[in-house]
Amino acid sequence: MRHRELDNIKVIGFDADDTLWINEPFFRENEERFCDMLEPYCPRHDILKHLLTIEIRNMELYGYGVKAFVLSMIETAIEISGETIPNKMVKKIMEMGKEQLEMPVELLPSVRETLKELKQDYRLVMVTKGDLLDQERKLKKSSLTSMFHHIEIVSDKREGEYQKIINHLDILPQEFMMVGNSLKSDVIPALAIDAFAVHVPFHTTWIHEMVDVTLTNDKFFEIEKIEDLLPILKIKQPA
Amino acid sequence: MRHRELDNIKVIGFDADDTLWINEPFFRENEERFCDMLEPYCPRHDILKHLLTIEIRNMELYGYGVKAFVLSMIETAIEISGETIPNKMVKKIMEMGKEQLEMPVELLPSVRETLKELKQDYRLVMVTKGDLLDQERKLKKSSLTSMFHHIEIVSDKREGEYQKIINHLDILPQEFMMVGNSLKSDVIPALAIDAFAVHVPFHTTWIHEMVDVTLTNDKFFEIEKIEDLLPILKIKQPA
Repeated sequence: MRHRELDNIKVIGFDADDTLWINEPFFRENEERFCDMLEPYCPRHDILKHLLTIEIRNMELYGYGVKAFVLSMIETAIEISGETIPNKMVKKIMEMGKEQLEMPVELLPSVRETLKELKQDYRLVMVTKGDLLDQERKLKKSSLTSMFHHIEIVSDKREGEYQKIINHLDILPQEFMMVGNSLKSDVIPALAIDAFAVHVPFHTTWIHEMVDVTLTNDKFFEIEKIEDLLPILKIKQPA
Repeated sequence: MRHRELDNIKVIGFDADDTLWINEPFFRENEERFCDMLEPYCPRHDILKHLLTIEIRNMELYGYGVKAFVLSMIETAIEISGETIPNKMVKKIMEMGKEQLEMPVELLPSVRETLKELKQDYRLVMVTKGDLLDQERKLKKSSLTSMFHHIEIVSDKREGEYQKIINHLDILPQEFMMVGNSLKSDVIPALAIDAFAVHVPFHTTWIHEMVDVTLTNDKFFEIEKIEDLLPILKIKQPA
């Protein structure tokens, strides 16, 4: 059943990482390499647990993104090793971060085609809480720049930030639809301000982004792949 | 002589760091502490030179801000010491960064009064290339949030970014005035897109921000303190 008010939508916001292109697996790969390095000091499972604790502890100060990840890895390595890791390991961690920042952008299936189609009828914006420089670089590498009106960069994705975006776009919440892979960051806070929200799950989700909820909201849609947006939005309701 | 077109200005953009509040001195202080630590390995002057080289080398990947600064300090320390710095020193550098991120915000003189006055007639936006999370935190600590319509965060401050801001604000360049302490980042690129620009020098400027120019442009103003904006903008031209 199609929501009547879907016809009011003017702007569609897209999360970027793991919605438009692959991102989280690069963090997971670097975590594996990090565990390889630190295994002489500690079992793998405990290394990851320790790292997550430190990442969450640093979240308020460092925020999201690769630089925060690298600093938290260095801090974890020093703690786990009892302040005995060699300089080479610190260097290696920093190199892993640089490599991650320089990764080629791999678009998810049918992203370009879907955006191209939607762009004809909607204003598209990218909504991301990553590091602006990094996100701009990825957008450029993705060759999707022309698809988006602009990037909305937020320090976190909570209700307040979505309200700001709405004000900023000068539209009503009912005229906004948010699309992303994170229930916690893309879907729940968007629904909370009375906007539409579409969940496109990605196979890898950072544990800090995980929530356990069942959503029953007639402005919520769950789709398998991004092209499934088209039938939701394109079939016009009879007048 | 007052520029006739000043009457057209609708939006005033303010740089934040070292324009609204003190920032650069905290970097300089941490550089001094960094030199204290590394002096056993290398003369102070060479430490600073080495650090600057690495910061500029990392600029494209890391961008601006405290996290980038910390990562570059660690990289410098490892290089200068020939990979022999103790873990405690790496920890110390990371702690210096965290302290810097948690610094209280010290407003420059007459900032609040001036913004309050200007807010009555203009839309004020904060334009910054720092880290969004860090800038939002500082804005909150400064209690200036209500003065600004929103934050324009940019990955760098060049002509292209100012053009984007203008588009984004949906105004003409002639309706925009940029105010800041950096000729390179706040003044020259704003003048280049035909906006107004006001330079409020601060006593400390990062060497990477320094330029040697004499500006002769009738849309350019040099003032000593931020309150000097008021006579420039408030004395209405006779009709």
